[in-house]
This record gives sequence, structure tokens and C-alpha cells, in this order.
Amino acid sequence: MNKKGILIVVSGFSGSGKGTLMKKLLSRYPDTYALSISATTRSPREGEEHGREYFFISKDEFEKMIAKDELIEYARYVENYYGTPRKYVEQKLDEGKDVILEIEIQGALKVKKAFPDTLLLFVTPPSATELKKRLVGRGTETMDVIKSRLDRACEEAEGMDSYDYLIVNDDLDTCVEEMHEIVRGEHHRSFRNEAFMKKIKEDLERLKGEN
Amino acid sequence: MNKKGILIVVSGFSGSGKGTLMKKLLSRYPDTYALSISATTRSPREGEEHGREYFFISKDEFEKMIAKDELIEYARYVENYYGTPRKYVEQKLDEGKDVILEIEIQGALKVKKAFPDTLLLFVTPPSATELKKRLVGRGTETMDVIKSRLDRACEEAEGMDSYDYLIVNDDLDTCVEEMHEIVRGEHHRSFRNEAFMKKIKEDLERLKGEN
Repeated sequence: MNKKGILIVVSGFSGSGKGTLMKKLLSRYPDTYALSISATTRSPREGEEHGREYFFISKDEFEKMIAKDELIEYARYVENYYGTPRKYVEQKLDEGKDVILEIEIQGALKVKKAFPDTLLLFVTPPSATELKKRLVGRGTETMDVIKSRLDRACEEAEGMDSYDYLIVNDDLDTCVEEMHEIVRGEHHRSFRNEAFMKKIKEDLERLKGEN
Repeated sequence: MNKKGILIVVSGFSGSGKGTLMKKLLSRYPDTYALSISATTRSPREGEEHGREYFFISKDEFEKMIAKDELIEYARYVENYYGTPRKYVEQKLDEGKDVILEIEIQGALKVKKAFPDTLLLFVTPPSATELKKRLVGRGTETMDVIKSRLDRACEEAEGMDSYDYLIVNDDLDTCVEEMHEIVRGEHHRSFRNEAFMKKIKEDLERLKGEN
């Protein structure tokens, strides 16, 4: 079966808990998954570390990476660049790790276009009411903030259909296992096992000839 | 998530052990799966029971079923008809069971055409050498029999690419779990959860309006 890693894009509603889900998945299966770390030109926030949350690089460095095609995808938000360095991803895939990119839909679709075998996963709370509850938070947000979060959730929802699988984050532990199960299953997809099929066909022809 | 059952077609090399795999899967997860029983006009062999191996019916009855569109697919081999009765399958799918059809590639492709959501699984031994070993059996077969089995295996191999997933039957227990995992994963496919996505989109729009 397919030994090469699968490139996995995880997106989801803000408030879907996908960050926590990824952390748990990686700590439970450290030999299976690798998390891709994005590069950005924005400044680190308090508590953020270079090489952990992001690779914090200069605009000049970022533009050189673009020019050299060293990014799988990138986007510019407001004044800052964000992108996925290609080298780390390809290295981990070759090692047989399933590499997770936690990016938004525009990036997800770009990655899928460049790498059609990419697996697109979308994390969602069990219902809109539950999502709103998480967006409203502890009641300390203004109506404007809540409204803008709901606007954003509506936009995010429009993209769901483009994803291969939905993961409903109700219970975290169940959710981790479901995601792991989906990825394990994907390794059996026939299009991911063309070398295996080719070999068995050739060997059968050879054995027939020998008989 | 998707509560409706999935229609699963299982094919595979003769000698892949798919019959044993299905039996084990059904006995381990009797509430999850249902095995579709084919109808045939051939006579029962020793030990075969009506309603267990097949529904043994007359040619006249079979042709009436064809005329009334009561078969999902059917084929004629030599002088006999073989087909999949529609009623049982649809009833079990509605009950939320994943219904397994153990049929050959021509039937599999017909089913997929009629029901595009059908999941196609192909069971294979780990290698051509292992397959030959199983086809040769205990050394009591003539060279002609072995040759015709290898011919058939080569034909079967040509169809592998049309299947969604490959299941390598090396160890039976592992194989049962892999198949179960693949099917569980498939329930999360976004195209199988259109109602869920539609509802969350509508509810979010409504919540946004209320805010």
C-alpha cells in the first residue's frame, strides 16, 4: 500500500476548534503526522516563536521565496504575506508522513490545483447554534464583533462543498479518531496506489507467461 | 452526519479471500452492514440454501423482475441469469445499513452508473506471487486449470483502477478492520452530507438575520 505521505489541508469555521484538534492529533500520532509551518512577514505576537507558530521572515525574503517557487501557496492579507514553504512539506511527504496544512479556503483550493492528490478536510461544529455559541464566547463581545464573526462564518460555509470530507467537532477525542480514520482510509484509495496496481498487473502477466 | 447507508460493491481476485472477509465483517458488525443476496436462475448446488447463498428463482420470474425494473443490475452467464434485487437493498439503505454487494466488475460498473454514490472496493492479495500460490492451491490442480485461473486474474487486474479503494488481504483481522475504517471514513464525505451542509448554511443566515 501507499507509503508516501498524504498532503492534507485542514480548514474550518473559526470557532470549530480545529487548532486544538490538530494539536491533539499530532500529540497522539507523532510518527504519522507532521504539521506544516507557514512563513509570514507579519511581526510575532506575544508568546509566538519563530519556527513554532510561524517562520517570521522579512518581506524581501518572502518575495525571494515567491520568485524561486519555494512556496506551495501564498496570499497577502492587508500588508502581510502568508505562505507554505515547499521544502519542508515535500521532505516530510517523502519520509512517509501525512503533512497537515492548516489554511483557509482560498489557499486550500490553490494547493488542490497544484497537487490534485491533496486531501481537503473541513472541521465544523455540530450545528449553527453551537457555532454561534462558540463565536459569542463568554458574553464579553460587542454585538458588532459577533455580527462580523457570523458574517465570516456564512462566507466560510459557502466553501464547505469544495472539501472532500467534513469532520464534526462535537467531542474532541471522537473527532481526533475520526480524522485519523479518514486519513488511514485514504491511504487505500486506488489512485494513491498506482505503483502497486502496476506491479501486480506486470507480475501476473509474467507468471502467466512462465506457466 | 450521514445516517443513510452506503451502497458498497466488493469485488476482487478469485482467491483474494473476499468471501471470508465479508463473512467476518458481517459477523463482527451485524448492526452496521447488510449483505445483499443475489437472485439467480441456476439450480442450487449442494449445501446452498434459498435466501442464504442466492434466491433461486425461475427464468420466468427473473424476466418479470427485469421487466418491472426490480433489479439494480443483472447479467447472463452461459444460460443463467444473476441479478441484484432492488427492494432489499433500498430497504436496508433506508434503515441506515451499509449494504454490501459482492459482484464482479461488469456489475460493479453498472451499479456505479445507476447509483453514482456507490463505493467500489477491490480486494487483492498482497502480491501476484501470493495470488498464484492461492490459485495453485494444494498442488492438485492441472496446469490447464491454473493457466485459466491466471488468465482470469489478469483480466480482473485490468479493472482495479475503476475501484475507489484497494484492500490488501494479507491478515484477515487487519483486513476486516481496514475495510470497516474505510467505510466509516466514507460516511464523512461531503457529497454524502449535503443535507447537513445545507442546514448549517441556512441556520447561519437565519442567525445572522436575528442578530
